[in-house]
Amino acid sequence: MDFTKLSKENLEREKKKLEEEYRSFQSKKLNLNMARGKPSPEQLKLSYPMLTAVNPESNFISSTGADCRNYGMPDGLPELRRIFAQMMGVDADNVVIGGNSSLNMMFDTVSCGMTHGFSGCEPWGCQKGRKFLCPSPGYDRHFRVTEYFGFQLVTIPMTPEGPDMDKVEEAVKDPSVKGIWCVPKYQNPTGITFSDETVRRLAHLKPAAKDFRIFWDNAYCVHDLTDTPDCLANLWEECKKAGTLESVFFFASTSKITFPGAGISAMACGDENLKEIRGRYAVQTIGPDKLNQLRHLYFLKNFDGVKAQMAKHRALIAPKFQIVELKLEKELAGKNVAKWSNPKGGYFISVDVLPGCAKRVVKLCADAGVKLTAAGATFPYGKDPDDSNIRVAPTYPSPEELEQAMELFCIAVQLAAAEKLLAS
Amino acid sequence: MDFTKLSKENLEREKKKLEEEYRSFQSKKLNLNMARGKPSPEQLKLSYPMLTAVNPESNFISSTGADCRNYGMPDGLPELRRIFAQMMGVDADNVVIGGNSSLNMMFDTVSCGMTHGFSGCEPWGCQKGRKFLCPSPGYDRHFRVTEYFGFQLVTIPMTPEGPDMDKVEEAVKDPSVKGIWCVPKYQNPTGITFSDETVRRLAHLKPAAKDFRIFWDNAYCVHDLTDTPDCLANLWEECKKAGTLESVFFFASTSKITFPGAGISAMACGDENLKEIRGRYAVQTIGPDKLNQLRHLYFLKNFDGVKAQMAKHRALIAPKFQIVELKLEKELAGKNVAKWSNPKGGYFISVDVLPGCAKRVVKLCADAGVKLTAAGATFPYGKDPDDSNIRVAPTYPSPEELEQAMELFCIAVQLAAAEKLLAS
Repeated sequence: MDFTKLSKENLEREKKKLEEEYRSFQSKKLNLNMARGKPSPEQLKLSYPMLTAVNPESNFISSTGADCRNYGMPDGLPELRRIFAQMMGVDADNVVIGGNSSLNMMFDTVSCGMTHGFSGCEPWGCQKGRKFLCPSPGYDRHFRVTEYFGFQLVTIPMTPEGPDMDKVEEAVKDPSVKGIWCVPKYQNPTGITFSDETVRRLAHLKPAAKDFRIFWDNAYCVHDLTDTPDCLANLWEECKKAGTLESVFFFASTSKITFPGAGISAMACGDENLKEIRGRYAVQTIGPDKLNQLRHLYFLKNFDGVKAQMAKHRALIAPKFQIVELKLEKELAGKNVAKWSNPKGGYFISVDVLPGCAKRVVKLCADAGVKLTAAGATFPYGKDPDDSNIRVAPTYPSPEELEQAMELFCIAVQLAAAEKLLAS
Repeated sequence: MDFTKLSKENLEREKKKLEEEYRSFQSKKLNLNMARGKPSPEQLKLSYPMLTAVNPESNFISSTGADCRNYGMPDGLPELRRIFAQMMGVDADNVVIGGNSSLNMMFDTVSCGMTHGFSGCEPWGCQKGRKFLCPSPGYDRHFRVTEYFGFQLVTIPMTPEGPDMDKVEEAVKDPSVKGIWCVPKYQNPTGITFSDETVRRLAHLKPAAKDFRIFWDNAYCVHDLTDTPDCLANLWEECKKAGTLESVFFFASTSKITFPGAGISAMACGDENLKEIRGRYAVQTIGPDKLNQLRHLYFLKNFDGVKAQMAKHRALIAPKFQIVELKLEKELAGKNVAKWSNPKGGYFISVDVLPGCAKRVVKLCADAGVKLTAAGATFPYGKDPDDSNIRVAPTYPSPEELEQAMELFCIAVQLAAAEKLLAS
């Protein structure tokens, strides 16, 4: 039953039916928040052993001889830098450990560009008409960082291969374009992993601005959900070959490996950028929280430990992604009212409803007790030009709650479509 | 035996004797680092119960209903905000909890001024010839923050009452003066607590710059070492009365209450500034490490718990301050080669040696295995105009090590004085 081909009468009848179903949902008085990619309580329990992994009996002296209970060690524990290096596919010597938030490290790095500039260029704060490329749909918090610092946000369409590289290569000819946000693996929200070709083209980018930087947020680098995970080409190695390593900042964190908010973040970059960043950190802080680093190290032990932990997350998350995908397939397939992703990892499923319907769907769901990410949030300035994209975050609710929420969601998608088609 | 009144012959003889003593010290091959105010291993053990205060059996749900294991809660736990409010003498509603470093919060606040400005003024980054007042001797890391951001550092002499307020009041008539660094209680390094009159005059300051800010780093607010502690007047209340609350940022941390580097920082400010800061934090991070906040809360419990913890620190630290003061008194009193503070709290003892001798003393100590804070570090740009001030940090070494270090220090002070007097 393709909604777009139904007669007006049939569409009216369908709409009535959907309205009834919707009303019966409202009476259930659901109260679910699916607005953000939050791990579930069950996932949080996976890291409980970490809570007491550092205790009075622990060895507090790092392999470098430093006392993890006291000040110092700005780069972080070498063992943890090594784990992050393996996660991120970079050299351990170029990894700097941060606090509890990789977003904060990205913010600080943009802030560093604003006040001090990169590659000897004038600070960004002194350059007029700065622009930043935002592959969209994308991560709202990335976009907000550059919006906060006064960049003009330039939308770059996402393709199944990653950001539209023709458009990126064209855009960077403009010297006022200073960077691009990337979530290269299981992108938020599309779930797409950048193709080898996209990674290669990014490594070989020739931006007019010497202080152009790729912000490579590998937030979901180990967050696979199937036996045939996506494989992301290694930008670090590609850039080393191309001689463009100084044009990238690499980020990752354990926020969705251990505890969101009480995890560890890390960044990596080429030697020149590192010198700038280290110089800044030496002024900014006396050092990161090494007890939390030690907690992570004693709990995760090594990269194999990270993978073992992620397998446990997968066991809890993968069934939820299946619920969403099965429900979408069952309720919406063939109706021509939505397209959606079937990602092999990450935290989101991206749904494109009929143009002009996303806000309505989100409102319908909210009015029946299910809060979704605000429509438009995945685009610069929170404005989806097509009002079409909706980010579904299936990890937090229980499977039962998720079943219900998706049932409601599918009704809302169809109802909004029927309303739209009848009005046009 | 006043060195300055000795005959050349007697001074020569004294110098020879000191050189012999110094050489015998060198043969001891000491290896002590007293460069920074670091808590000792024994102090760190006081917080061991905190390591497991949060464990799988804990209640993770805050009084507001938020899950401390997950994202969110940018202001921090209300109970912890209350404890900080009592420590800092401010309103709990105006406290924001940060990460593990109050220095980082200060850096971020200056950085906020640089890119976004305060009180609707042009961002500091766009204003030429910015200046910042640095009461000296003072805290080197404060000075370095404003140096990093391109402020001209203006030395304000410290008096026994705090910063020379005549000079401060004169300086702020210049609209390019944007702020002042203050450690109001047991100042680093002088140990001085600002007098009531100084606090009152700061509250009533009339800076020409609307975006002038007092950075009030109450790092040692509960760090008393005697039964008759200094009492700091409450700037928050004074400013409220004077209608100048928006001109101050208040800071504190638990770095020297629990674990340095794994503590909790906090800031407080008036409603207008708070709006700016909260808006920034909403972009900068998804929230602070609430598990570490919970750890602190379950360990310290309340303000009385903080005081009880500080009594234990005092029991370990106070004897070390006595060792330093007794040694200085015994070896240097009446010789007219040094003046020093006898602070009632904090982390430092400040010694003023003969002008032109501080660097020499620090080098003599280093060459015999005792590393002190670099001479000059307590002044803007690391340059003490008199080359006279030395910061002694007695907390880290054991009492036995400290005895030896101070013995060496007193020899070095006299030797440098003898050299100096003979050369002039």
